[in-house]
Amino acid sequence: MSEELSKGEEAAVEYNLSQFQLEKVLNSNSGSKTMSLLGHFADLSAEKRAVVILEKKAFTEADLTSKSGFFSDSTSLRTEFVNDIYGNFECFPRPEINSIKTTVIYPATERHIEKYSKQEIHIVQETPELYRELTLKHIEKEQFSLEWLYNILEHKKESERIIFEDPCEETGFILLPDLKWDSKTTETLYCLALVRKHGLKSLRDLNAGHLPLLRNILTKGVAAIEKKYAVARSQLRIYLHYQPSFYHLHVHFTYLKHDAPGIFCEKSHLLDTVISNIELMSDYYQKATLSFVLRENDSLWDEYRREGSSRKLLKGE
Amino acid sequence: MSEELSKGEEAAVEYNLSQFQLEKVLNSNSGSKTMSLLGHFADLSAEKRAVVILEKKAFTEADLTSKSGFFSDSTSLRTEFVNDIYGNFECFPRPEINSIKTTVIYPATERHIEKYSKQEIHIVQETPELYRELTLKHIEKEQFSLEWLYNILEHKKESERIIFEDPCEETGFILLPDLKWDSKTTETLYCLALVRKHGLKSLRDLNAGHLPLLRNILTKGVAAIEKKYAVARSQLRIYLHYQPSFYHLHVHFTYLKHDAPGIFCEKSHLLDTVISNIELMSDYYQKATLSFVLRENDSLWDEYRREGSSRKLLKGE
Repeated sequence: MSEELSKGEEAAVEYNLSQFQLEKVLNSNSGSKTMSLLGHFADLSAEKRAVVILEKKAFTEADLTSKSGFFSDSTSLRTEFVNDIYGNFECFPRPEINSIKTTVIYPATERHIEKYSKQEIHIVQETPELYRELTLKHIEKEQFSLEWLYNILEHKKESERIIFEDPCEETGFILLPDLKWDSKTTETLYCLALVRKHGLKSLRDLNAGHLPLLRNILTKGVAAIEKKYAVARSQLRIYLHYQPSFYHLHVHFTYLKHDAPGIFCEKSHLLDTVISNIELMSDYYQKATLSFVLRENDSLWDEYRREGSSRKLLKGE
Repeated sequence: MSEELSKGEEAAVEYNLSQFQLEKVLNSNSGSKTMSLLGHFADLSAEKRAVVILEKKAFTEADLTSKSGFFSDSTSLRTEFVNDIYGNFECFPRPEINSIKTTVIYPATERHIEKYSKQEIHIVQETPELYRELTLKHIEKEQFSLEWLYNILEHKKESERIIFEDPCEETGFILLPDLKWDSKTTETLYCLALVRKHGLKSLRDLNAGHLPLLRNILTKGVAAIEKKYAVARSQLRIYLHYQPSFYHLHVHFTYLKHDAPGIFCEKSHLLDTVISNIELMSDYYQKATLSFVLRENDSLWDEYRREGSSRKLLKGE
């Protein structure tokens, strides 16, 4: 088996969680019930480090109503207190209906560790000049490898995960479930459209020439999600991140009631707004001041701060 | 025992979760992993209803590091996929370290049921035509009284809460802590700037003539917050809501790391972006398509739906 694999494709690493040695909690969010951990696998390599991200899953109606689901004899109950009509309990459902979403990044680079660590953040106002002088240079210097994305576009990986594909090289895209989604729970629906066209880094590169691409993603992405998951357009949040986490144009589709990460106004731009902006002014994204958030230990924040504070630069004072 | 209790105090109800009959999911929040349910206990009374609130618990470091904790043989692992250095798994820890906070309200009144119910929501794309034909008419018909706000502007109420005031009738404003803020905790900082000028309902009314007002709020609001709370501009999210909860122009200032309600991209517009848009095009907010969210039982959603679905109207198809 391993010989066979070694010819064509790489063997997937087999992880044994009981061998994970925790070095540090990188971040912990009690609101979303997530935790990011740094450590290594004792049975793999002591030098190569792993980032492990744990996330409690949202409840599904199926877990509640199935025969051996939450409300069955397989759940045990511990009373904390009962006062009048109000009672507080701790429940212990069987493991199969109470799993934890676990992501492993191995081996993890310093950039990954930084990405999943808690930090001070700052908002900056990026004028077109600042984009060219600071942000663009930074992107060109620091960009992550896009190998995983090209693997998807070329059907080398994850092709079984594709929800919809439009093969056109100019306006086509691949729609698939985001890594953060379990591909099942409508309440946490999260899909990603990756454009087939190469070379579009972000919002900043878009103009009227890309309206057919953007409208195509909107129309066909919505139709594919409605068909496969029965979620209507009016219940979808469709948006782009600025800055994105990787510089190959992609569009997020999330369930409107799902508080997905990064949907705040300082990070997300609705695709409808992007289309409207470009319709009003073809070079809107080459002329607009765009705000975005930087982590304090991101070297780009140093550059923005060093330039004499983003506030002064914004208006060229 | 039961006789003893009946003399002085009521016996606490013994709940058996396996007897809970689910009638309806009242609310589900995939971000915080909570769910509110309506039903009854078959072994208690079919007429008296119960509200059950389930909440996944946050991770604790102890659960991760203990001997039979998360990273031990007692956890089983199911691989979803591995692509390059990224792997996604489902983990099944033993029930004792993965419990669920459970609250039971029994018997529950209609008020309880309402309190724990959530409305369906829908996002609509408001073209300038739809603004005039549907939204504006709705605002004019349904608007709440602004008496409380005029009381603040005229120093009749809450004058002791004012953080900063610029008395100019054209570009002036009053800055005060939002009602949701305790006025102390920096991590949840939330201030509101109310413009002195009357008649500006929302974003839709703004044009280049209002740039001095908007810039004044930005500059002086930031300075006042920095002076009083020692929070720098780069740690502030400064934005307007669309739709706002009241139709007299106001600007929100929140701490950037604080997940304040309503800061999602479908609801909030950064003041820097608003200024940049108007600088690019004086009548931007009279020409742009603006998205916003409506609750299903809001009569304006009926109107948007009745017009033949917002999607068709958006492009005048």
